[in-house]
Amino acid sequence: MKLNADLVIIGGGPAGVTAAIAAKDRTGKIILIRKEKKALIPCGIPYIFGTLRSPDKDILPDKLLDGVDLIIDEVISINRRLKTVTTLEGKSIKYKKLVLAVGSTPVIPRVRGVELKNVFAIKKDIDHVKKLKSALKNSKDLVIVGGGFIGVEFADECRKMGMNVTIVELLPHCLFTAYDKEFCIRIENKLREAGVKIITGRGVKSILGRNEAEQVELSDGKRLRADAVIMAIGVAPNTELARESGLKVDEKTGIHVDKYMRTIDKNIFAVGDCAEKFSFFTRKPLNLRLSSIATNEARIAATNIFEPSIKNEGVIGVFSTKVDDLCISAAGLTENAAKRCGFDVVVGEAVTVDKHPDSMQEAREIKVKLVFDKKTKRILGAQVCGGITTGEIGNILAVLIKNKATAEDIKTLQIGTHPALTPSPIRYPIISAAENALKRDEKNG
Amino acid sequence: MKLNADLVIIGGGPAGVTAAIAAKDRTGKIILIRKEKKALIPCGIPYIFGTLRSPDKDILPDKLLDGVDLIIDEVISINRRLKTVTTLEGKSIKYKKLVLAVGSTPVIPRVRGVELKNVFAIKKDIDHVKKLKSALKNSKDLVIVGGGFIGVEFADECRKMGMNVTIVELLPHCLFTAYDKEFCIRIENKLREAGVKIITGRGVKSILGRNEAEQVELSDGKRLRADAVIMAIGVAPNTELARESGLKVDEKTGIHVDKYMRTIDKNIFAVGDCAEKFSFFTRKPLNLRLSSIATNEARIAATNIFEPSIKNEGVIGVFSTKVDDLCISAAGLTENAAKRCGFDVVVGEAVTVDKHPDSMQEAREIKVKLVFDKKTKRILGAQVCGGITTGEIGNILAVLIKNKATAEDIKTLQIGTHPALTPSPIRYPIISAAENALKRDEKNG
Repeated sequence: MKLNADLVIIGGGPAGVTAAIAAKDRTGKIILIRKEKKALIPCGIPYIFGTLRSPDKDILPDKLLDGVDLIIDEVISINRRLKTVTTLEGKSIKYKKLVLAVGSTPVIPRVRGVELKNVFAIKKDIDHVKKLKSALKNSKDLVIVGGGFIGVEFADECRKMGMNVTIVELLPHCLFTAYDKEFCIRIENKLREAGVKIITGRGVKSILGRNEAEQVELSDGKRLRADAVIMAIGVAPNTELARESGLKVDEKTGIHVDKYMRTIDKNIFAVGDCAEKFSFFTRKPLNLRLSSIATNEARIAATNIFEPSIKNEGVIGVFSTKVDDLCISAAGLTENAAKRCGFDVVVGEAVTVDKHPDSMQEAREIKVKLVFDKKTKRILGAQVCGGITTGEIGNILAVLIKNKATAEDIKTLQIGTHPALTPSPIRYPIISAAENALKRDEKNG
Repeated sequence: MKLNADLVIIGGGPAGVTAAIAAKDRTGKIILIRKEKKALIPCGIPYIFGTLRSPDKDILPDKLLDGVDLIIDEVISINRRLKTVTTLEGKSIKYKKLVLAVGSTPVIPRVRGVELKNVFAIKKDIDHVKKLKSALKNSKDLVIVGGGFIGVEFADECRKMGMNVTIVELLPHCLFTAYDKEFCIRIENKLREAGVKIITGRGVKSILGRNEAEQVELSDGKRLRADAVIMAIGVAPNTELARESGLKVDEKTGIHVDKYMRTIDKNIFAVGDCAEKFSFFTRKPLNLRLSSIATNEARIAATNIFEPSIKNEGVIGVFSTKVDDLCISAAGLTENAAKRCGFDVVVGEAVTVDKHPDSMQEAREIKVKLVFDKKTKRILGAQVCGGITTGEIGNILAVLIKNKATAEDIKTLQIGTHPALTPSPIRYPIISAAENALKRDEKNG
């Protein structure tokens, strides 16, 4: 069967769907091809286990694709000369422009025993997730290898199911690539209070067992009981299809793209987890793969489809998560990361509550940390932990970072406040933290 | 008694306290003089009635003023030649710089019967609030004159106490100066569902009764039973002290200030409700008095105390409130206001839920409306209604407005998302509304 479209999008995750939505109504005929019958919402996957209860509650609704032709099939090759893609089921689809949004695959470490039954990676596939769910249902001792977002969120959800959960993290702290130590410790304490065991600074040597995983052996020889193991050490970009089509790719960093999200073939774009990224701050390559980054890149690509007009300015990196009732968010560089990037930094901090007065019902402590470049006083990064508004406060911080706001700009922000919705205008913590940084900087000259 | 200070601040509300906090550690000796033994948090006043239960739970903590000399007394005159202020109790305090943060007073309309017992304005005074509280405790039928923020918030709180509440508003809708009609209607519907009666488009002719208010007579002759009446039609700046000191004042707009928040006397600053304001958008005078504006002006003044360095850029106007479980926020110009200011506008809208997937617990619908200048595509205003994160989403919008973000800037915002904390990255409503505006604009040429 031969088909024809102005725009063909390969991949039905957040990047692909967002590209379709952004291009709709201004791009002629759009075909989106995805392998999965139903597409899972990737960020929701951990929440299938303790909160949502069923994978069927974590489906990306196809009604988002109204006006787009959805084909469930797998693209097996791209002919760049003829501008066609060929699918497993034998379709040939001619494109004017093509967007690759083919995602990523979990990295499986090469340790002995990873092939055992009951050792799982987190694939964005509903059948896989269902299998995992039923395996966990019959398990008691769960070891999660990797204390990143997936690891921490799975830990919190699985302990809600009553499992004994242990996180094993190679770095000194969980979430240590996204937050500075003091914030990581808060999350770790919250996890521990909820009954999760955390072992940091150690890797996994092997997984022991006959058919099923029975024990996890750590780098220091310690052995943990396990009747299920989740591998959550990261993801790698899916580059095979692009490489086979002669596009420039790097197995670690992804499909090479320019600032318009175009591959070396100007008719082919790549967005999301499969595409190469660079830092907003240093312009250097960055291995950070998040849905929110994917959707941003998709919107940039969709805008540039028929005429390059807006440039990708690089990844800021905005993260939010929640453990039990503690929420945490970060945008841009941590203090640690900023120093590693060679910035001389000045930090500002503020602690208050997220409603006012403090006596308001459900008022929660909120802590904000801002990291500024000492020379220019431009904001480089921010971290916040508190209650349920923490995620959107993180987004205020992300906007400030994108705008290269200085500490003085932030000190004079105009914000709105309300007793039940925000901290007090007198001590609005983003503003107070900027004031704190300016005062510290004056003191230290 | 003679005292001496580098900086004297008159007024202990949000403006005065924030000026003190901002100036602390860099300004030498600071004296803050306030009349009230305990200072109420103004935005919390409505919540004393149904939520906090006691005025003692709505106190601005004096520990905010650590390092500042607090004097409970009333300033009765300023001698600008000698640079001293004199208090009711006979203190004479010499200042190098003086900040007037003397606030505002409720406007009492000149209608017959306003002097009756059980007719109240909302004064920021703990004894007054206590009196009001005990009067309301013994009342059943409450008429609130004025459907602005104070009126609406009092209505929601007093109906929680089991009173029969009626709001009388002269404009076509409650909160109509802050939100466009469709948002006002949502709030009005919520109030009505909660049992509040709303009468709009009518004023109050007189209040009837012997000693106590018994009825409120409207402009159309209709009479409402009332055993308590709250007058919430607005506030006027306190200008007397400034006028008597020979400073330039306008009784309606306030104490005249320049962009550094200085009065015509360069050693005297005025901030908060007592000070003149102008619009960020039109540069024209603006009668808008909010705690969040007061604290912003206080920080600007404190920075400029000994050397003018940062300019007030005018009031954006950021409002949040909550009725029952519906939260609403706005920043900048409404569509209506923008048109009145002469802008040709293009609007973008988006509706989604504030968590993702939609099946997440407590996910609430969220609606965002953005108003852009058609020519430049610069954002002029924004409104949002939804759940508990609405206030901070309003603050994201306020930051975008301050930064004069265009629709294209907003379309490519980098935000962070999490199932329990934010909408989906695919349909993040601020971004979707900007896309919607761009598409509408393309269609209409």
